[in-house]
Amino acid sequence: MLGKYGVFPPTDPEFEDPPKLDKYDVIVVGGGGGGYHGAFQLSAGGYRVLMVDDKGNLGGNCLYEGCIPSKSVFYMVYLAERLRRLAKRSAGAAEVKAIWEEAVDHKDEVQYLRYLQHIREIKEHGNVDFVKGVARVLDGRRVEVTAVDGSWRKTVEGSRLLLATGSVAVRLPIPGAELAIGSEELFGYRTKRRTLPREVVVIGGGYIGVEVASAMASAGAKVTVVEMLPRIMSGWDSSIVSMIEGALKGRGVEILTNSRVTAIREESGQKVVEFQRPDGSKGTVAGEEVVMAVGRKPYVEGLEALGIVEKGRVVADSSMSTKAPGVYAAGDVLGKYMLYHAAVKESTVAAWNIMMGRPVYEVNFNAIPLTLFTEPEAAMVGISEDEARARGIPYVAVQYPLEDDSYAQIVGVREGWVKLIVERESQRIIGGSVYGEAASMIINEIALAVAVNARVRDLALLAHAHPTIFESIDRAAVRFSL
Amino acid sequence: MLGKYGVFPPTDPEFEDPPKLDKYDVIVVGGGGGGYHGAFQLSAGGYRVLMVDDKGNLGGNCLYEGCIPSKSVFYMVYLAERLRRLAKRSAGAAEVKAIWEEAVDHKDEVQYLRYLQHIREIKEHGNVDFVKGVARVLDGRRVEVTAVDGSWRKTVEGSRLLLATGSVAVRLPIPGAELAIGSEELFGYRTKRRTLPREVVVIGGGYIGVEVASAMASAGAKVTVVEMLPRIMSGWDSSIVSMIEGALKGRGVEILTNSRVTAIREESGQKVVEFQRPDGSKGTVAGEEVVMAVGRKPYVEGLEALGIVEKGRVVADSSMSTKAPGVYAAGDVLGKYMLYHAAVKESTVAAWNIMMGRPVYEVNFNAIPLTLFTEPEAAMVGISEDEARARGIPYVAVQYPLEDDSYAQIVGVREGWVKLIVERESQRIIGGSVYGEAASMIINEIALAVAVNARVRDLALLAHAHPTIFESIDRAAVRFSL
Repeated sequence: MLGKYGVFPPTDPEFEDPPKLDKYDVIVVGGGGGGYHGAFQLSAGGYRVLMVDDKGNLGGNCLYEGCIPSKSVFYMVYLAERLRRLAKRSAGAAEVKAIWEEAVDHKDEVQYLRYLQHIREIKEHGNVDFVKGVARVLDGRRVEVTAVDGSWRKTVEGSRLLLATGSVAVRLPIPGAELAIGSEELFGYRTKRRTLPREVVVIGGGYIGVEVASAMASAGAKVTVVEMLPRIMSGWDSSIVSMIEGALKGRGVEILTNSRVTAIREESGQKVVEFQRPDGSKGTVAGEEVVMAVGRKPYVEGLEALGIVEKGRVVADSSMSTKAPGVYAAGDVLGKYMLYHAAVKESTVAAWNIMMGRPVYEVNFNAIPLTLFTEPEAAMVGISEDEARARGIPYVAVQYPLEDDSYAQIVGVREGWVKLIVERESQRIIGGSVYGEAASMIINEIALAVAVNARVRDLALLAHAHPTIFESIDRAAVRFSL
Repeated sequence: MLGKYGVFPPTDPEFEDPPKLDKYDVIVVGGGGGGYHGAFQLSAGGYRVLMVDDKGNLGGNCLYEGCIPSKSVFYMVYLAERLRRLAKRSAGAAEVKAIWEEAVDHKDEVQYLRYLQHIREIKEHGNVDFVKGVARVLDGRRVEVTAVDGSWRKTVEGSRLLLATGSVAVRLPIPGAELAIGSEELFGYRTKRRTLPREVVVIGGGYIGVEVASAMASAGAKVTVVEMLPRIMSGWDSSIVSMIEGALKGRGVEILTNSRVTAIREESGQKVVEFQRPDGSKGTVAGEEVVMAVGRKPYVEGLEALGIVEKGRVVADSSMSTKAPGVYAAGDVLGKYMLYHAAVKESTVAAWNIMMGRPVYEVNFNAIPLTLFTEPEAAMVGISEDEARARGIPYVAVQYPLEDDSYAQIVGVREGWVKLIVERESQRIIGGSVYGEAASMIINEIALAVAVNARVRDLALLAHAHPTIFESIDRAAVRFSL
């Protein structure tokens, strides 16, 4: 599976060489967010680092087929939607289908320039020996590295290992699974699929499936989401899920829940998705294209021998140490958050602790935001109301409706709210959720409030710039009372 | 000057009545940001409040002709610019001139719905008696209120006064000044001027002049800015001013500095602006329209008798108390920040202190962001590098170039940086500046960091949501070293 890509990212001829040394201070396996951020910190600290990645460039799946290309597409699609809605005369005639194709062109440009940037960044970090290759971890110190084309093989030793092998997309083991496309076909670097299908069936109502469904519907496709569970967006706050359901339906997306997909077949030029409900009844839904978005799983192949894999994922503590001495891990392979920004901090903390020689730093897992890049967006951080209730934490929730926010009115996206969860006793911010315009941005300030134990009064008295949607944070906070 | 508007905002018949009582707990003079936020807090606390405003609605100049309508126009203009740049095939043909006209329609809609919202909000705060009228402060307790149409007059008494009389636009005392238009003509509610002039001369290179120049140029006008000082954007960090100058020039805006305007005259259908340089040499620049944006001054008429006016502004301490017993002040009348969001917090703090009966709360004037709504935006908070150097504060500045930020790449606006100013000894964030995409949003999180004395490490280890431009905050912070 590793080292197999239809189109490889741009790389540098230097990266095709075998590792220059036999022994390194740290070997970093994987060049995604969990790998390279730590590697760069180690390099700045004077550590000799080997970093191995099978794509021959950085950013992992996030850049190759994930967050960055998908958001590049979504951004343009929603930009056009906004202008169509606000500037009815000037932009009403904008050709809808073309937007998706132009958005796919745009994402390729973003990916390309970002890959070039990463090549430059690797060269700026002189203590990092970056190698395009496939790594096989032999034990807690030794790693065998093989050229992607098989032309060389070398075993190297590291005083420490940082495992950041990432994750792979899950494919349902059903007949016809190969008829479905996934992230790689949709957003992969220089993908061949560049047009918007007329009708799309999305298998999976998690955040990726919902994002794809929303954007394709905005661009003009007829979309159906097929979800196995009773509700889409499992794990998200129920108040947000209701809003997302409404927004999808508003774009004409049909949501089929309690529907376990059993097969995909082709029939008269259409792809037909067969599903079964809990009561045994069956149904089908057909479309020009089927997108499978049923999640990702940690890539742990070859790591079992280290004794650090449990239930299909590598286990590490909040200092990012595994049970194996000298072996650290970061990113999707932990199967925990599986978010790029979590991986970045896990990687950084692992590197800092390696340099300190002991676990001094911890990742604050209470302050990692979750985001959903639909239009409008959704985001959560810390403890949700659902969770506070379940755990019996005395709390007060305060919220401000974005309908009344001046920036939301200016941009014409007025649904939603900013909600703060305040621990009753201490009056400290322990969580928050946002549904609406710029939720993915607003959540960062709330995350900082959670991370530094800010009180609700700190937010109430902060003069958020006007007119920005961040004012809704203080408008919510000022409503606090016991 | 008060009570004179070409078009009055929508109001409610109830608000046209004289004050219902003879005596109130608090009289709030002015319904802008400095007035109504405090009034609503007082109402929630059970205080009987009279609030008087000559427009018969809330929001002051910010809503009538200032931040909200101008940003409504700018938002649409830049939205179109973005789509034209990113989606060359679909949106390239979008009619440029029409965008300004549609943007002016949009701003009227935003103003209208916001005025309706304010009417609803007043009614939700049952202890507030809101009156459309002109207030004259007789002494530290008594206020005479007159109907805007002169149909009634009543003197009322308040145990406390909150003065939030706002500010008025400055007009240069030069021949032909009446030929220039200002914020009211450009952005006033239901203004008659709805089309984009072909060539515009903007007098004044402060933030309002620069915002107007940038947006009009984006929409297709030929713009010249005439500034009296050696440089535009006086008071802003020099590194930001350089970027703004570059962006304006990139849009074809001509900037004439060291040019004091001496007269405006009409000549063959054009308006001609005459100016003089420090060396005595003279020049002219002509256009279809002249916009005067030379600042605003506190509206202190009738307040001198209280002994609280110095150098044309009301003086209050950080608890918002003036020297006159029981008299508080908030907003533009203080001539301090003259920003809506500063006014809101000043008003809130004044109200909280009135309810506490003593000065318990303070406005944190170190953490009030300044913003510039151009494309891209600029923002500053706390202590700037220029200021830290001047005051001899040992500091370390860390910055991240937005050129390398993935979100900046996604939206295609890559100029600029996020910069954090860290006090060397304590490693605490004492200021920051942003030039670039979403600067007006990013600055809020930095403001919170300043307000709660966050350390640079708190920001470095915060997992900002990916891909959002807020990641640049941790990317800057992680570069910190002594």
